[in-house]
Amino acid sequence: MPKNSDYEEVIKANERFYKALGTRDLELMDTVWIKDSRAGCVHPGWVMLQGWQAIRQSWENVFDPSDQVDIKLSGISVEVKGDVAWLTCIQELTYINRDPIMMNVSQSTNIFERHDSGWLMVLHHASPIPIADYIMEGELQ
Amino acid sequence: MPKNSDYEEVIKANERFYKALGTRDLELMDTVWIKDSRAGCVHPGWVMLQGWQAIRQSWENVFDPSDQVDIKLSGISVEVKGDVAWLTCIQELTYINRDPIMMNVSQSTNIFERHDSGWLMVLHHASPIPIADYIMEGELQ
Repeated sequence: MPKNSDYEEVIKANERFYKALGTRDLELMDTVWIKDSRAGCVHPGWVMLQGWQAIRQSWENVFDPSDQVDIKLSGISVEVKGDVAWLTCIQELTYINRDPIMMNVSQSTNIFERHDSGWLMVLHHASPIPIADYIMEGELQ
Repeated sequence: MPKNSDYEEVIKANERFYKALGTRDLELMDTVWIKDSRAGCVHPGWVMLQGWQAIRQSWENVFDPSDQVDIKLSGISVEVKGDVAWLTCIQELTYINRDPIMMNVSQSTNIFERHDSGWLMVLHHASPIPIADYIMEGELQ
């Protein structure tokens, strides 16, 4: 059985990822991921990027230092089994200093592996949710 | 280190899932999944359905026995760590007896757990890829 601390650590690793994403902090992003060819990343609507090199390059391309991104997570669910954990959540990104303000809502699956240095992200899969569906879903809760 | 047979078994479990999807076979789908509340399923463009009951109901709703679905998988990548495996692939679904023929291309992440009865799907996350991107990606290979 996984320990409660495992869940907490996975949630913290996940928060570090979204902090790096929200603050456009590539150096922090470096601390989030495994650094080998097994790393996989699906940006919303993209095919999977495979390997840390390609993933890092994509963050470098996407990160615009003039962006201010507000991130809200909801519906977080965590599973831990041995040295693997997967966390699913809805990520709501609001680009608050764009005109007009832009909002992206995605369903995410994030897989982490336990390493000596902590839980490292091995896969991030984000897929777009039409905002209308998302709001409707919210109303049903 | 995972054994070669682990990879083969995960690939077979994944093939069983796509066979159930392609042949609209709900009974076969029953054999693919874990049957508890941890099961998660993201149909392309949807939010995650949580729990086997909701997932099975969604297949029941989606499966139209008059559909003939041809499924092609590409870019398959498998990772095994302990009793967890994750497989990523591009799934190309062609509804060959619709007029006009309809094609859906998605990036998928499928997570499996090792159980006494074999590898069972615990999460399926499929997200739409615009077909233009997919074709362009193919040309780059």
